[in-house]
Amino acid sequence: MHILVTNDDGVQAPGLLALAQEMRKLGRVTVFAPDKNWSASGHVKTLDRPLRVREAILADGSTAFTSDGAPSDCVALPLLGLIDPVDLVVSGINPNANISHDVTYSGTVTAAMEAVITGVRGIAVSLDSPDGFKGPLDYSTAAIVGRRVAEQVIADGLPEGVVLNVNVPYFKESELKGYMITRQGLRVYRDALDSRIDPRGKPYYWIGGEVPTGIDEPGTDFGALRAGYVSITPLQLDLTNYKAMDVLKKWKF
Amino acid sequence: MHILVTNDDGVQAPGLLALAQEMRKLGRVTVFAPDKNWSASGHVKTLDRPLRVREAILADGSTAFTSDGAPSDCVALPLLGLIDPVDLVVSGINPNANISHDVTYSGTVTAAMEAVITGVRGIAVSLDSPDGFKGPLDYSTAAIVGRRVAEQVIADGLPEGVVLNVNVPYFKESELKGYMITRQGLRVYRDALDSRIDPRGKPYYWIGGEVPTGIDEPGTDFGALRAGYVSITPLQLDLTNYKAMDVLKKWKF
Repeated sequence: MHILVTNDDGVQAPGLLALAQEMRKLGRVTVFAPDKNWSASGHVKTLDRPLRVREAILADGSTAFTSDGAPSDCVALPLLGLIDPVDLVVSGINPNANISHDVTYSGTVTAAMEAVITGVRGIAVSLDSPDGFKGPLDYSTAAIVGRRVAEQVIADGLPEGVVLNVNVPYFKESELKGYMITRQGLRVYRDALDSRIDPRGKPYYWIGGEVPTGIDEPGTDFGALRAGYVSITPLQLDLTNYKAMDVLKKWKF
Repeated sequence: MHILVTNDDGVQAPGLLALAQEMRKLGRVTVFAPDKNWSASGHVKTLDRPLRVREAILADGSTAFTSDGAPSDCVALPLLGLIDPVDLVVSGINPNANISHDVTYSGTVTAAMEAVITGVRGIAVSLDSPDGFKGPLDYSTAAIVGRRVAEQVIADGLPEGVVLNVNVPYFKESELKGYMITRQGLRVYRDALDSRIDPRGKPYYWIGGEVPTGIDEPGTDFGALRAGYVSITPLQLDLTNYKAMDVLKKWKF
């Protein structure tokens, strides 16, 4: 079992190391992650410039690869043959939840999508840390959960084309209510335009506002986290709205 | 009717101008597009740096806005209030088809997704130009098709949460076989790792290979284009694989 571990926060992020250390219990692990933070940078295939790859040493002394590509490039390059064949890609641990509409923005989730497009199983793991939490996050529960989910995937496989999106409450492992298979819920973004003037009198704009929240519905990713459960959402790459097809077929051109 | 026109190829791309000119037949148009090419850059929300916005003059002498943000930022900023309220966002015309798994990579499609997440209708328009085509592309058919689809959306609305992904064959308008409502098909990427050595003896890597193709199935986006039809795929932002949920619910943790 050869597991590729990546993330979107950069190769030195503590969540990546926590995940890699747990994954080593399941087999050989190669870490291949971006050399900078790519949060909310979406699904990227870098075609307009070449990519560099170098070695990095993680905080536990282990060796990793790092690239100036995006998270999805850090999956594409290894799977195109830069390293030995990979059986499973696990991405994370993201320091914030990736739920609902976050999934197409999320470098963590799109890295796992990239694996599945290439025909390799992919799991994204994110930690639902408290808003405004200061100090180092404890990734230990999320890392254990990530390993357990990976064990299930290794044992039972996954339906074809499925990307697993795992979100873990910020609890001790013993405090988790359990594991829930969920659907993607509804995000409520609270972005606001923050217009400012630079020292030279010219305007610039931040996408500001408040931390997004969600609609707390049972059975959703957001609802599961609120109730203290690990949320496991099977995502697919077919975005077709089949019901809408019937509506649109009545259109006359 | 106030229509926002954007793209992922940059504000001076000829496909954007062709689309904007057709859309002006339906109402007031504001062009707000990136200041560089963002192809295959995915769904981005730029939160780690401020964004600049400036005026640009298009090739027909009309005024546009341009920003150093991604295509989805060029939708987010206007819809956060930088311009008057918008009724419809149309993104394109991309010089290549955006079908199948392209949709999460595509700046053209994710710009339309950004609109729908914000509660505004979104349409992405792409031209299935021939591989390796040299010289300026003729966007006139795709622009007319984009306008006709927009007319339908304005007249009949769209099911909630639906993003329309429109792909147009590279034909004269009179040669089009018609319009087909399609599902997302299967892409066949033919990427290959191209390893090179720089003048200083260090390796670098291109994601190379051949132009992607697809599986020619009736009813799909790829199949419709092959048969000479405009492909209109209703996409949704809920990626949940509901069938897989039943499989995963048997897992024991």
